[in-house]
Amino acid sequence: MDPLIIPRTLKGFRDFLPAAESRKKSLIQKLEQVFELFGFVPIDTPALEYSDVLLGKSGGETDKQVYRFLDHGARDVALRNDLTVPFARFIAAHRQELYLPFKRYHIAKVWRGENTQRGRYREFTQCDFDIVGTDSLSADFEILLVMARSLAALDIGPFHIHLSHRGVFNRLLQRLNLDDRSLEILKTVDKLNKVGLDKVRESLSAVAGGDSAKSILNFIEPVPDFGETLSRMIEEAGGQDEDTARLGRLKELIRDLGMEATFRLDPSITRGLDYYTGIVFETFLEEQPELGSICSGGRYNNLASLYTKEIIPGVGSSIGMDRLCASLDKSRAATGGQYGPVLLIINMDERFLGYYHETAARFRNEGIASEIYPEKKKMARQFQYAEKKGIPLALICGEEERGKNTVIIKDLITRQSYKGLSIDAALSKAADLVATSLPRT
Amino acid sequence: MDPLIIPRTLKGFRDFLPAAESRKKSLIQKLEQVFELFGFVPIDTPALEYSDVLLGKSGGETDKQVYRFLDHGARDVALRNDLTVPFARFIAAHRQELYLPFKRYHIAKVWRGENTQRGRYREFTQCDFDIVGTDSLSADFEILLVMARSLAALDIGPFHIHLSHRGVFNRLLQRLNLDDRSLEILKTVDKLNKVGLDKVRESLSAVAGGDSAKSILNFIEPVPDFGETLSRMIEEAGGQDEDTARLGRLKELIRDLGMEATFRLDPSITRGLDYYTGIVFETFLEEQPELGSICSGGRYNNLASLYTKEIIPGVGSSIGMDRLCASLDKSRAATGGQYGPVLLIINMDERFLGYYHETAARFRNEGIASEIYPEKKKMARQFQYAEKKGIPLALICGEEERGKNTVIIKDLITRQSYKGLSIDAALSKAADLVATSLPRT
Repeated sequence: MDPLIIPRTLKGFRDFLPAAESRKKSLIQKLEQVFELFGFVPIDTPALEYSDVLLGKSGGETDKQVYRFLDHGARDVALRNDLTVPFARFIAAHRQELYLPFKRYHIAKVWRGENTQRGRYREFTQCDFDIVGTDSLSADFEILLVMARSLAALDIGPFHIHLSHRGVFNRLLQRLNLDDRSLEILKTVDKLNKVGLDKVRESLSAVAGGDSAKSILNFIEPVPDFGETLSRMIEEAGGQDEDTARLGRLKELIRDLGMEATFRLDPSITRGLDYYTGIVFETFLEEQPELGSICSGGRYNNLASLYTKEIIPGVGSSIGMDRLCASLDKSRAATGGQYGPVLLIINMDERFLGYYHETAARFRNEGIASEIYPEKKKMARQFQYAEKKGIPLALICGEEERGKNTVIIKDLITRQSYKGLSIDAALSKAADLVATSLPRT
Repeated sequence: MDPLIIPRTLKGFRDFLPAAESRKKSLIQKLEQVFELFGFVPIDTPALEYSDVLLGKSGGETDKQVYRFLDHGARDVALRNDLTVPFARFIAAHRQELYLPFKRYHIAKVWRGENTQRGRYREFTQCDFDIVGTDSLSADFEILLVMARSLAALDIGPFHIHLSHRGVFNRLLQRLNLDDRSLEILKTVDKLNKVGLDKVRESLSAVAGGDSAKSILNFIEPVPDFGETLSRMIEEAGGQDEDTARLGRLKELIRDLGMEATFRLDPSITRGLDYYTGIVFETFLEEQPELGSICSGGRYNNLASLYTKEIIPGVGSSIGMDRLCASLDKSRAATGGQYGPVLLIINMDERFLGYYHETAARFRNEGIASEIYPEKKKMARQFQYAEKKGIPLALICGEEERGKNTVIIKDLITRQSYKGLSIDAALSKAADLVATSLPRT
């Protein structure tokens, strides 16, 4: 016999056990419901793409993070490392079949060969939603609304969406004659939450000089009030323009929908990427700010420039599923939360197997997830199984009960038994117990 | 400017446009509901694994189909090519955290560098469900039940589950002194549906000799009645034993649940793999037999022998998601089927944007997926968008309606307009129209 192989996984890759996978699925389902209520439709793209399609002809900085290899046909291929580039490729490829504006969501795995030291994974789930083919204020606002509604649906506690506008920041940098260093400055400011104000001041002074650093820091300094912050941004950037007008309209729309408590105008939000051109935003959990932003994005003016001459503007956002799951795992670990079946039919007598399966079918028809212990083992062992799997109710029917055409429902949490029940009575008893006492994920 | 990159995908890999992706999602959701009603829990495993873990130390025949490469850390890694081996690895890795029997489902992508000539894909979705840690009849029956219930939930028309038992077939081959050639013979019989009786007779004669071929053909010849087929199997195999007794008990359980019309005892089913040891089964659509089996599996006596000395028997089944989707795509293409949002709020006046978003929120709160056209464009263009996206209802509110605090609901299919409605009246009108006239996926 061959020696055994150690059943190990690659560093940065994870198995999902049932509790964690159930939680992830439930999270995704809630998000999808919200996306669909807003008219977003799902798409999917291949995990593997031609390397030049995914990375651009030159490759570039992200290259090192990408799983790239020659396939059996000697094609240079790579695993997708985000969902944005595949979306751009998708839009260009299917332009004739699609209509604009196009609103899609895409929840799928991506792979990055990153350093796992900092608690990063090499395989993780991204959740992107975008509106492309329109440069409108309404689309900007809609993305913000979808973020607010979907995060609210997840029941993750209070959160704030911080937003700003790259155009206004760029205008400030122009006024300071710093447009040649704008990306560097934006990236520096983007690190504010991570490294703190002093470090940012230091870096800014080095890049932009002390006076400009002061102006920039004045521009990004947080003020609680949206209107007040906007006034100061307008002033620092050198007056009103289309971009500040759009921020003003956003403020009105947020007020119209009574959502002032959710949104903050925060000019320190820059998203340190060349890609963004309009509004930019990040989201923080009030109770777990250390997680960083759990949902971020912004407006870009040209999605698919690698593949098509058509200019396709858009606005989109991405939810960090793994951060969210990790945060929920932590909070749920305390409260429990039931995700598996509700009822275990104890296997008392193999002769009654047909009856057990029939009975299970009746419970399932009422939406009560039920299973039968597959072998006649000692009852203690069957109860132990229920406990390990987190099944809260048992149905017991041995020779005596079968003779009287009754069953027993046992609440495995309170240990209380309900005897002499007809199947109909057992159904309502189980439904009652489920409704009144079981926390569900 | 760099020349454009052609937005192509790899051969055998597919984009899923919204209609197809929605259908796949809806299919998966229905399957998951059934699995969970039966007490199956979801798991997930990495797409990428160590090659020796995935392929065994020797590699072997499947090797050529596998996407295998050295990662940036020079690790020999491979993309999973099925969900069975990762499940075996998973069970061995998490044995201490799991309870047995363990019932899991896993719906995920797998990759195989197969020849695409025969309409095969290199990336496709598998849906596996297994019960491991029990050798019981009840588990065999439960897997068959789950297959029947989940396929019924998909609304794919009538189907039949053909089942047999590898143990009984093996006994026949022993009696004929052919056990040294059993896998070859099983694989030959397995091709019956594809190549026809004459070819199989020819091949069997070559492998086993004319007399034995005749016995085998007599054994596998289909007879409609379960009991009659079982009697002949018992006779040809040389009498009753545990395996034939189990088939007899399965017959009783199928009868107890009134499911005789769904199941057929069909000794020509062999699943030409070494792996199976007990019952084996395949499923055929009555109206699309040319698709081949859409759901197949069987009992195996040792899942994780590569990784652990513990003997873990199980029974499981796998649904061919892509075949199913393809078949549904065909039948749905005729009937349409609505999957996107239900209501488009026409953008008549940018001043009313707040009101439009508020109104959309009210519809969404009632479960009516709604969106706002993001720009004030000509109405014809907005209607065109609704038509392309398959949105059946429009809400119109311009200056006149806004002044009277009313809206218009327009049924874009019948072209009928309902004017002067309050928002509440519009909500019920839309709900009525949705309930009475829209086919949903």
